[in-house]
Amino acid sequence: MVRVMLDAMGGDHGPAEAVAGAVEALAADHDLEVTLVGDQTILDGLVSQHPDVPRLMVRHASQVVGMDEAPATAVRSRPDNSMSVGMRMVREGQGDAFVTAGNTGAALAAALFELGRIRGIRRPALATLLPGLQGSYLILDIGANADCRPQDLQQFGLMGHVYSSRVLGVREPRVGLVSNGEEEGKGNQLVKGAYPLLKESGLHFIGNVEGKDLPRVPADVVVTDGFTGNVLIKTAEGVAALILGLIREQAASDLRAKVGGLLLRPALRQALTRLDFNEVGGAPLLGTNGVVVVGHGRSRQRAIANLIRVGAEGARQGLVEAIGEGLAAMADVVGEASA
Amino acid sequence: MVRVMLDAMGGDHGPAEAVAGAVEALAADHDLEVTLVGDQTILDGLVSQHPDVPRLMVRHASQVVGMDEAPATAVRSRPDNSMSVGMRMVREGQGDAFVTAGNTGAALAAALFELGRIRGIRRPALATLLPGLQGSYLILDIGANADCRPQDLQQFGLMGHVYSSRVLGVREPRVGLVSNGEEEGKGNQLVKGAYPLLKESGLHFIGNVEGKDLPRVPADVVVTDGFTGNVLIKTAEGVAALILGLIREQAASDLRAKVGGLLLRPALRQALTRLDFNEVGGAPLLGTNGVVVVGHGRSRQRAIANLIRVGAEGARQGLVEAIGEGLAAMADVVGEASA
Repeated sequence: MVRVMLDAMGGDHGPAEAVAGAVEALAADHDLEVTLVGDQTILDGLVSQHPDVPRLMVRHASQVVGMDEAPATAVRSRPDNSMSVGMRMVREGQGDAFVTAGNTGAALAAALFELGRIRGIRRPALATLLPGLQGSYLILDIGANADCRPQDLQQFGLMGHVYSSRVLGVREPRVGLVSNGEEEGKGNQLVKGAYPLLKESGLHFIGNVEGKDLPRVPADVVVTDGFTGNVLIKTAEGVAALILGLIREQAASDLRAKVGGLLLRPALRQALTRLDFNEVGGAPLLGTNGVVVVGHGRSRQRAIANLIRVGAEGARQGLVEAIGEGLAAMADVVGEASA
Repeated sequence: MVRVMLDAMGGDHGPAEAVAGAVEALAADHDLEVTLVGDQTILDGLVSQHPDVPRLMVRHASQVVGMDEAPATAVRSRPDNSMSVGMRMVREGQGDAFVTAGNTGAALAAALFELGRIRGIRRPALATLLPGLQGSYLILDIGANADCRPQDLQQFGLMGHVYSSRVLGVREPRVGLVSNGEEEGKGNQLVKGAYPLLKESGLHFIGNVEGKDLPRVPADVVVTDGFTGNVLIKTAEGVAALILGLIREQAASDLRAKVGGLLLRPALRQALTRLDFNEVGGAPLLGTNGVVVVGHGRSRQRAIANLIRVGAEGARQGLVEAIGEGLAAMADVVGEASA
């Protein structure tokens, strides 16, 4: 039985949506237990509406972190917030994974404080799946570390490799490095420093990748610093909105286009589902001493159920232990290479 | 009369396309002279096919820089290449602007070598226009400097301001800074260092902007380092290709969608025109002692005519002098602020 702790107070849509997500996840997975962490009164009320749902529990947390609060301050000044309480349960072995659709920065701060880092990992990283034409791929870091060292990017490559192979089931994942050109030697100082480290890491490193490769990206894991990664995924979001806005504008311009737009709509909607980040399933935080998955604040029931599924899978596949083992194995390879 | 030097050997489509672009530009602008720089024999042959086109000249250059060559080496080892020859004519007052659809890195290297920097500018930057729903905006640097200092970003803001107001005719351009969050204090070390410098620059600085703001970006000039800027524009390109690929795939999935796609096609094509980088008009190199505009290697006749138009406009508006004056004025403002 995998036990997932769900922050029931995080996200834009409140506890009702979190409970609905938990109910959906429990229906799909009979080897799963979900604990809703948050205000006992509110949560008991919501849970009582699902008397037939088994394996759904409540754990009281008297405080909450708001979506727009300064993360570190909020987490430190209110130690009984639902995130910190849930993570503490994981640390103490009462839970196997923690998931939240709340304040991302607060989740990072709380994870570093409550769970700490896996031995040898300098910087935990946030990862997410991006859609491509031939399936999706993992990108990290997308925002946990605005400034990185080359060695951090090597560790991101390893953690991405472990997540991709263990949780996503990719056999021998190919690892790429985001750069401003494909050739070795292209990049800023950080990328130029990380390239040789990834090359000697024992990972299946395929070299630099560029943003224009995104539709048919040749990698399963794409590594970058948290600043560039954040700009990259937000640009992807912005450009998608821009193109759909332009198409919508043009499709309203004359009758022929209007009719065309109506006929094409179901197919368009289908195409957009494949671009929807919520469907793809949250951002695992890799490198902390416990499985943590962070979802978008606007996550609805389906997306929250998905977060729970991802968290459960991370725990089942022994993600934390595998990263630790991978790190040790990489140190051996690098040691041999330089010996 | 504005005299534009056109690298007739650069670009994927060769001299014939360059000549066609020059002919198109000359037809639209009677106060323009174009000198084709490159192999005299080839160019004379092409020009002789347009006996009625006035103000079209040839300047021989015996060497060429290939599209995929290592820029600095190629430029230095072959000083009679068409780029260096064209830029030397600008330096010596025989031309007012230089434009090329050739190897971007080589154009940068040749410009630094042949034209040098405007006094006070540490790093020239490549700028380009990106499309938004309410018109386009300027972004720089998109690749000239992979590593930057905060002061460079301040200078990019100034150069973007000058280009936007002088050449694009924007009254009091708003300047934004690419970051991983909108609030002041968000960013990597570089962005955190550049923010106060832009704030005290006397420019109309509106703070941080994010990639998700791209469709309705609140700035006329967007400043970033050359690594991030390059990743950003290539990601935009990649996502556009991805979405259109998904739509195309879905639109072929059933009869209803097929008919809809056919009816919508002219409107879609219209929407895509607004996204086409070639139409928008090349990348001006800002900060060198002479007007230089670099176009995409795949530029065709129309795009080359556009490069010539942009180069001519830069020369007419006294871009180089205006950047020098703006830099002096900014130094005064900053001096007063810190006095």
